[in-house]
Amino acid sequence: MAAKVYKPAAEVNLGPDSDEFYISPNVKAPRVAGLLVKIFVWILEMPIIGSMVLYILKKDNLINKLVQDAEIPEPPLFTSTHSWEDIPEQNVCLTKPDLSPPERVQEAVSCLPASLESTLAGSPPSSPKRWTIRDFNRAYSSGEVTPVQVAKRFLAAVKECSGPGLNMAFFISYSPEDIIRQAEESTLRYQRGTPLSAMDGILVAVKDEIDCLPYPTTGGTRWLGRARACAADAAVVAQLRACGAVLAGKTNMHELGAGTSGINPHHGSTRNPHNPGRVSGGSSSGSAAAVCAGLCPVALGVDGGGSVRMPAALCGVVGFKPTAGRLSNAGVLPLNWTVGMPGILAGTPELNLPLLKSSLSIKNIKLAKYAKWFNDSSEDIRSCCDKSLQMLHAHYGWETLDVTIPEIEEMRLAHYVTIGSECTASLAKYLDKLKRSEIGWDVRVALGVYGSFSSRAYLNSQRLRNRQMYFHKEIFKTADVIVSPMTGVTAYKLQDDALKSGELDYINGAALVRYSIAGNFLGLPAITVMEACKKHYKKPEVFYDLLKKD
Amino acid sequence: MAAKVYKPAAEVNLGPDSDEFYISPNVKAPRVAGLLVKIFVWILEMPIIGSMVLYILKKDNLINKLVQDAEIPEPPLFTSTHSWEDIPEQNVCLTKPDLSPPERVQEAVSCLPASLESTLAGSPPSSPKRWTIRDFNRAYSSGEVTPVQVAKRFLAAVKECSGPGLNMAFFISYSPEDIIRQAEESTLRYQRGTPLSAMDGILVAVKDEIDCLPYPTTGGTRWLGRARACAADAAVVAQLRACGAVLAGKTNMHELGAGTSGINPHHGSTRNPHNPGRVSGGSSSGSAAAVCAGLCPVALGVDGGGSVRMPAALCGVVGFKPTAGRLSNAGVLPLNWTVGMPGILAGTPELNLPLLKSSLSIKNIKLAKYAKWFNDSSEDIRSCCDKSLQMLHAHYGWETLDVTIPEIEEMRLAHYVTIGSECTASLAKYLDKLKRSEIGWDVRVALGVYGSFSSRAYLNSQRLRNRQMYFHKEIFKTADVIVSPMTGVTAYKLQDDALKSGELDYINGAALVRYSIAGNFLGLPAITVMEACKKHYKKPEVFYDLLKKD
Repeated sequence: MAAKVYKPAAEVNLGPDSDEFYISPNVKAPRVAGLLVKIFVWILEMPIIGSMVLYILKKDNLINKLVQDAEIPEPPLFTSTHSWEDIPEQNVCLTKPDLSPPERVQEAVSCLPASLESTLAGSPPSSPKRWTIRDFNRAYSSGEVTPVQVAKRFLAAVKECSGPGLNMAFFISYSPEDIIRQAEESTLRYQRGTPLSAMDGILVAVKDEIDCLPYPTTGGTRWLGRARACAADAAVVAQLRACGAVLAGKTNMHELGAGTSGINPHHGSTRNPHNPGRVSGGSSSGSAAAVCAGLCPVALGVDGGGSVRMPAALCGVVGFKPTAGRLSNAGVLPLNWTVGMPGILAGTPELNLPLLKSSLSIKNIKLAKYAKWFNDSSEDIRSCCDKSLQMLHAHYGWETLDVTIPEIEEMRLAHYVTIGSECTASLAKYLDKLKRSEIGWDVRVALGVYGSFSSRAYLNSQRLRNRQMYFHKEIFKTADVIVSPMTGVTAYKLQDDALKSGELDYINGAALVRYSIAGNFLGLPAITVMEACKKHYKKPEVFYDLLKKD
Repeated sequence: MAAKVYKPAAEVNLGPDSDEFYISPNVKAPRVAGLLVKIFVWILEMPIIGSMVLYILKKDNLINKLVQDAEIPEPPLFTSTHSWEDIPEQNVCLTKPDLSPPERVQEAVSCLPASLESTLAGSPPSSPKRWTIRDFNRAYSSGEVTPVQVAKRFLAAVKECSGPGLNMAFFISYSPEDIIRQAEESTLRYQRGTPLSAMDGILVAVKDEIDCLPYPTTGGTRWLGRARACAADAAVVAQLRACGAVLAGKTNMHELGAGTSGINPHHGSTRNPHNPGRVSGGSSSGSAAAVCAGLCPVALGVDGGGSVRMPAALCGVVGFKPTAGRLSNAGVLPLNWTVGMPGILAGTPELNLPLLKSSLSIKNIKLAKYAKWFNDSSEDIRSCCDKSLQMLHAHYGWETLDVTIPEIEEMRLAHYVTIGSECTASLAKYLDKLKRSEIGWDVRVALGVYGSFSSRAYLNSQRLRNRQMYFHKEIFKTADVIVSPMTGVTAYKLQDDALKSGELDYINGAALVRYSIAGNFLGLPAITVMEACKKHYKKPEVFYDLLKKD
C-alpha cells in the first residue's frame, strides 16, 4: 500500500468546500473476548512468530501508510504545552494566581453569580437533583448535616453498590477509617466556624492513577501498587487536601489506561450507573461512574486520549481536561509524557454555566463544526447534538461555522503511536521484570503493539502533531470553539465473556475516542457536557442522595 | 548484559571525588575499507539476514545496555533551545537585535577595540598571516586591492588546488561567473564609497548542506541536489548576501553528515591543507579546509555532532557553534531537527580575542575540567591543552575547577540514536525511492543502523538528554566554561583504499567526537580555538595569500 504523501499544511483547505477526504476508521476486526483473546496473546508473545505476526499486522495497515512511511513536510512538534495569558473578558471572572488553594476556592465561589444559587429544597421532584459543591458546603455551614454524616452515607452506599448484588466496581481501594477521620476533622472545623474553604468536607474520589495517601497507586493493575511506592500526595491531591476536601478513595480504571471500556479483570469492571448492564467507558471509569451515582459531586481523573471526557459522556456527567500544563502532573503515574494530564469530573452544573442560564450568556460565540466528522456518530447522538446547536443559536445567537478539520484519523493513529511508545518507555522498568500473567489479556495485546513502534514512526507522529497544531490554530482564528459529539456510540453492553479476559473491540474503541484526540495531542482545553436539549436528566438506576433529609 | 539502572540525576556527585565511572569507548572494530566494506553492506542490506545481523550487533551492545533497555528516572527532554538574555557584562559589547544585518555588522566592528587593529604590513615574516575580515575590508576601502582582484586570485587558487596535482576537494560546486559578478558589484560599491558593510566583498564559502543560490544543495551526495530543489538562499546566507558578502561556492562535506572523516567518494575526499596526506575531519570538511588554506577568512558549516568544531580543530582554525536557536535553520538541509544548526569557521583571530590580548582579559573566569575525560586524548593533545590552561592561569588568573561530568559515553550514544532516528525520518521521503548504489558504502552502513532504532530507544535518549541538561546546569552554577580538548586524536592518514569505498573507522570516529556532543545535545554554545601556547602557527602546506602585494 503506497504511503501517504502529505501536502504542506499551509496548502490544505480548511473551509467547508475542502476536498480533504474524511476517513472513518474502517475497522474490520470482530469483537474478541474469552479464549480467543488468550490464543491471540499466546501467538503474539511467541519469541519469533510474535514479531512476524506484528510485522504482518502492521505491514499493510494504516499506521504504516499514514504515519510510519508517510511523506510529511513538517518538522516534529514534540510537546504541546501552551503559554497562556489570562485575558479579562466579558462575564469572565479570574482568580488571582498567587493565592493559596483555599483562597482561590473562595475567590472562585465569589465569582459565581447569585442567580445560580440553589437551595436544598429548590429542585422540582421530577429532576434527580445532583448536589453541587456549594450545596454540600451550605448544608455543612447551616448545620443541617455534618461531613461525618455524609461520609457515613457515602461508605454505606459504596458498600452496598460494591456488593455481589450490584458489583458496580467503582473503587479499587477506600479506607473507611481514613475517610471518617478526615470527615471528623472537617466537622470539627465547621463546628468551630473555621472551615478551610468551600471545599471543606466535600467528598472527592481520585482515579487510581494519581498518588493519594494512604493508598497505593495501582494504575488499575494488580502489581504496580507493590512495584512503585506511593510516598506522597500528587500535587493536585495536595491542593484539594489543603482546601479541606475529604479524599474518598481510589477509583477504578481501565488497566494502565490502555483501553476504553473500563472492563478490568483485576478489580472488577466498572458498570454504568444508568444501566449496570453497560460499560462505563474509560479509562477514568470509576471516577465518572461514582460522580454519576451521586457518591461525590466531583472526582479526579487523568485524560491521555479522552480518558476523562469519554467516560463522563457515557455516564452523563461533565468531564473537563484543562489546557496542557495548567494542572501539575507531579504524582500522576507517568503512563505517557506528552498527551496526558489530570482532569475533572463533576455532576452538574457549576462547570457548564453558560449552557444553563441565559443571564450568563456570552455573546458572539462562534462554533466550528466539521460536518462529516460531527455526523460520524450513531443517529441518537447526532440528532441530540444537532438539537443542542440549534438551541444555542435560538437562545444565545451562537453561530455555527462549517469548517474542515483534515486528517482526523491520521491524528488518532499518530496519537496512538505516541502514547503507546511513551507508555512502553515509561513502564519498561517494571514490565521488563514482570510475569506476563500479572497483566490482563487485552492489555498484553496493547503492550505488544505499543512496544513495536520505530523511532521513525514516533518522529513522524510528532510531525503530524505539528500539522494538526497548525490546522487548529488556523481554525481558532475564526472560531472560538470546535463542537462535536463526545463519542461516536453510547455506552454499549458489558458482556459476561469479557469480565475475566477483557475484550478486544476496536470498532467501539475507535468510536469512543473519535472526538477526543485533539485535546490531548494538541494540549487544548476540552470539555464534555450533558446534551442541553433535555431540561431534566434521567435519574441513574444506581443513584445515592447523600444530602437527603432523614 | 544487564541494562544500566540510573540513579536520579540529583543524587549524582558532580565533584572531583565522584565515584562515577568514566567509560572510554572500547571499540574493538578494526578499520575496514575497500571490498570488506562492500561485503558488509551486502549482508546488512539482505532482506531478513540483514535484520538478524543488526539484531545480533545491537543485542549485547552498549546502546541497548545504556540507552534502549536502561532504567532512567527522568522524563524526556525533546529539544534544547534556550531562552537567553543579553546581560551587559564587563568588556562585552552587544549589538542591538533589531538592526538590519549590515547595521549589525557595523555595530560589531565598532565593538572591536582599536588595540587589535592590524595593518596589511604589520605581521612578522615568520608568522603566516591569516587575513581577517577587517584586513580585506581595509584593503578594499583603501583601494589597495578590489574585490574583483581578490575573487580572481581565489578562483585561480581553487582551480590550482582542485586539480589532479593536489586534489584537495574543498568545493563541490562553485561558479566563476557568479563569484565574479558578485565581486564586480562589490567593487562598484567600494568605488562609489557605498559598501554595504564591513562584510562587503568578503569571500564566504558555504557548506553544501546550506541553501545558497545559484547552486543545488547536495548534502555531499550525488543525488540530493536533483531530488530537492534549492529555491532560495538559507536565512543565514541571505543575511550575508544583504551585507555584501561574496558567496564563494559550496564546500565539500562528509556525505549526509553521516561520518567524521571528510572522505567522500562522490566529490573527492577533502585533504588537510596542513598535510594533504591526512584527513580534514568532517562533516564540514571543505569549509574548515578552505579557511585553513587561506581561501576565505570565514566560512559557514553545520554542526550536528561537532561537525563544525571538529574539522576546525583538525585544520587548525576557529570553529564556533552558537547557542541552539541563535541562528536560523531555515534553508539548512533537515538532516536532523534537535541537535544541528549552522556554525562559523574562521581563520583567526577576531573570534578568540580573549586568548590573544591581555588588554581584553575578562577577570575571574572559572574553567571546569573533568580530568578523566580531558586526559582521554593522545599525548600531544593532552600536553598542549594542559599548557594552555597553565598559560590562562598565569596570564589572566583563570582558575580551573575539577568536576565530574557523568555519563559522557551514555550521552554520545543517546545523541547517536537521536541524530540517526531524525535523519532516517527526515530523509525517508528520498531514501525510500533511491537506488542504494547512489549512496556511499560507509553511509549505507550508517543508514542501516540509523533506521533500526525503536521509539523506546529514542525516548530513552531524550531522558538522558534531560539528565545531561541537569548535570551541565549544575556545573555552570560554579563554572563559566567547560574546557576540554576538541578531539581525542589529531588528523590521521587518508588511506588510498578509502577513497572510493569510504571507510569504517569507529575508533578514530569516536575519538573525534569525544568532546563535542554536549554542545549539540544540550544546545550549548561551544567554540574550538587553536591551542594558545604557540605564538605563531605553522603555515599550512597548501596556503594562499589573497591579499599578497603583487
